[in-house]
Amino acid sequence: MKRRVRIDLAYDGAGFHGWQVQPGGLRTVQSELSRMLGRLLDRRILPTGAGRTDAGVHARGQVCHVGGLGDDEAERLMRALPGMAPDDIEIIAVRLVSPSFNSRFSAQWRRYSYRISRRRDIFRRNRQWFVPRGLDREAMDEAAAHFLGARDCASLCKTRSLRENNVCDVDLCRFDWDGDSGIFQVRSDRFLHHMVRTMVGTLVEVGRGTRSPDDVPDLLAACDRSRAGKMAPPQGLCLEEVGYPERLLDPDYDGPGVSPGPGPKEDA
Amino acid sequence: MKRRVRIDLAYDGAGFHGWQVQPGGLRTVQSELSRMLGRLLDRRILPTGAGRTDAGVHARGQVCHVGGLGDDEAERLMRALPGMAPDDIEIIAVRLVSPSFNSRFSAQWRRYSYRISRRRDIFRRNRQWFVPRGLDREAMDEAAAHFLGARDCASLCKTRSLRENNVCDVDLCRFDWDGDSGIFQVRSDRFLHHMVRTMVGTLVEVGRGTRSPDDVPDLLAACDRSRAGKMAPPQGLCLEEVGYPERLLDPDYDGPGVSPGPGPKEDA
Repeated sequence: MKRRVRIDLAYDGAGFHGWQVQPGGLRTVQSELSRMLGRLLDRRILPTGAGRTDAGVHARGQVCHVGGLGDDEAERLMRALPGMAPDDIEIIAVRLVSPSFNSRFSAQWRRYSYRISRRRDIFRRNRQWFVPRGLDREAMDEAAAHFLGARDCASLCKTRSLRENNVCDVDLCRFDWDGDSGIFQVRSDRFLHHMVRTMVGTLVEVGRGTRSPDDVPDLLAACDRSRAGKMAPPQGLCLEEVGYPERLLDPDYDGPGVSPGPGPKEDA
Repeated sequence: MKRRVRIDLAYDGAGFHGWQVQPGGLRTVQSELSRMLGRLLDRRILPTGAGRTDAGVHARGQVCHVGGLGDDEAERLMRALPGMAPDDIEIIAVRLVSPSFNSRFSAQWRRYSYRISRRRDIFRRNRQWFVPRGLDREAMDEAAAHFLGARDCASLCKTRSLRENNVCDVDLCRFDWDGDSGIFQVRSDRFLHHMVRTMVGTLVEVGRGTRSPDDVPDLLAACDRSRAGKMAPPQGLCLEEVGYPERLLDPDYDGPGVSPGPGPKEDA
């Protein structure tokens, strides 16, 4: 029986041109993993990731999988992979999962964080969006709550990435404020392309007073990208965690791998 | 009357070959400042720094000065310099000081921090020393206290940097422990070359149990570099603060600029 392995990893996005392999040999997380897997297993493997993060975006809880492995190959991978990572990738865990597990399509939810700060900090310049002006935090909290629930999020998506169905069920959407900084936390069953950064850009416009919290329901209802705010820069964003059905974490389970839901599970 | 300006700055040392200008056009903090000053004042100026930090070492409170300025030049510098810094340098303050002020030789004390952690953190890999094994923190605290007081620190200095007088008066020397991390704080009237990193390397050996806290008085008394521990890596070190006599911060004061003390004031 062929084995499937799940890899949990973290990376500092500053040194990568995003997750996805790129033409021209640009350094990406997927290409680094592929290089490590190639050295271990002596063949070309491109692991599938739960979230195709953009250039400069970080991850603390990215998940990918590799299938079609012999028992000895899976064993070698679990033993050796964590020690092979470059210093800006951490392999957190490597484990056997169900042959039906798919890091991207089996995901039930993803959680992202986005950090903004009104204090410039050279040591965090690649980890946060520096927004020097004072923001109306109460208005931002109020606006963030309007994103909660199952809603068509076409207004928050890069236009050419739109799908037939753009409904996302957001069940966590709030700022945790701490001194000069705010960490935006958002969880949803799916994310559209650039969705979190467009949410944050819109919320910062609310904080600056150039739009009101009540704009949010209207702009969502319009299903028109031009109604939302300017996209926030990539370096504040971090893929924190991906949730899967318990049964798929059992290596012996071979039932269906994708949960029923509103169309294909996409990534932010 | 010629004006003298004090510049307070922070930098992320990861992108620099240290403070000091280097042959071959290597990027250093001093050369970056010199480039900015040259653009502003149209002549070559090499600012003197309080601490000549090594490659990879950070600063939150580095101080340097520029002298021989006309009133309009000083004015221009105070207005424009903060906006010219690259994204890994922050110009914290630019102000007029006494013509007798010398960032290096007027310093009364310097304070450094050094961060160690037993948890690997890819986002802090350039900011801390990752020491995976558990350390005996109590033994390290006990050993650190033995560095306090006015002592000959020749055993902690790179041999070819030794001076006639190597006495340093250390008045703060302790760890602040917090979960997985420890921040070592040390303040002294002067530091010898590599002194803080050699202290930390020695203290970590105490924490690992390969030497006892009581070794510290003996190795200091020996005045022999081979008796101390292996030097800790640069990325955990940060120049936090430099202290000066109040009077030298007054632009109109023109008395002596160097405090009486045990020989030339050197930097770590």
